[in-house]
Amino acid sequence: MLKVLRIGHRPSRDKRVTTHVALVARAFGADGMIITTKDLEIEKTIRSAVSKFGGEFEIASGISWKKALDSWSGLKVHLTMYGLPLDEIIHQIRKKDVMVIVGAEKVPSQIYQLADHNVAVGNQPHSEIAALALFLDRYFEGGELRGSFEGAKLKIMPNPRGKTVVESGEKSE
Amino acid sequence: MLKVLRIGHRPSRDKRVTTHVALVARAFGADGMIITTKDLEIEKTIRSAVSKFGGEFEIASGISWKKALDSWSGLKVHLTMYGLPLDEIIHQIRKKDVMVIVGAEKVPSQIYQLADHNVAVGNQPHSEIAALALFLDRYFEGGELRGSFEGAKLKIMPNPRGKTVVESGEKSE
Repeated sequence: MLKVLRIGHRPSRDKRVTTHVALVARAFGADGMIITTKDLEIEKTIRSAVSKFGGEFEIASGISWKKALDSWSGLKVHLTMYGLPLDEIIHQIRKKDVMVIVGAEKVPSQIYQLADHNVAVGNQPHSEIAALALFLDRYFEGGELRGSFEGAKLKIMPNPRGKTVVESGEKSE
Repeated sequence: MLKVLRIGHRPSRDKRVTTHVALVARAFGADGMIITTKDLEIEKTIRSAVSKFGGEFEIASGISWKKALDSWSGLKVHLTMYGLPLDEIIHQIRKKDVMVIVGAEKVPSQIYQLADHNVAVGNQPHSEIAALALFLDRYFEGGELRGSFEGAKLKIMPNPRGKTVVESGEKSE
């Protein structure tokens, strides 16, 4: 079980970035995501993607980070450019249940203390979307790019020069 | 030489996502980025990051994709969920000069024809930021996370439990 906890989301400002975080979480193999701020619009967008492209990804919003972390019995991993290098620490994390904590602008300082690991995907400023993608890539050892999603109504098939979308009339068994 | 070409950027809507694209491009080892729409605010943000954190990353905006691609003699690689799997095609691209084309919402159909390779970072909908990050990771074979940047005024040092920022009074030799 691997879940993503999105902290500090401001619906007015972060809607697109948080949507990307959630789509990456789903596409790269996470089981679900919790957003600490209520945002029904993002919930709807992500459920619509799940309905079209399959899988079991769960999304919830409006749950405080304290509550989310308190009820999590697995590892808590905070992605931050200030942490320890991903490639040095991932072997302690792989195959365990993980809640991956991903902040927007500013993360409460308690998170650095509560996390089992503060992990840096490079020590340069970039993007929590990229950090999550690389973390999941290392966690799943590249297998996430070959994953398939049960019950997809739409499937994109590789095409060297255009778009191939296969529609399924009903959910696959 | 590896550059990123950002197509379809709308300053009113895409500012934060395009900023993430540019920061990822820089942090993960690209030499520069061209945005087809003029956006001086993003240029300023990225130049400020380069000035603080070092390196030679170049940013330009307001150059049409036709002009940018016409003047590029290396490979043109378009990232799209409809393309061929990254892991199958990266060996044809690695070590060559590449312009990586990254769209916002809708990409002109000519791009699929003009590109030497249409490459999918998974065939699921997610994020051009994550797609670029994974592409660069595979291109640089993970080395991008250990890269250092010349002339940094600020350096983030790995810390298991907080923030360590080292300030340099002058440019390093």
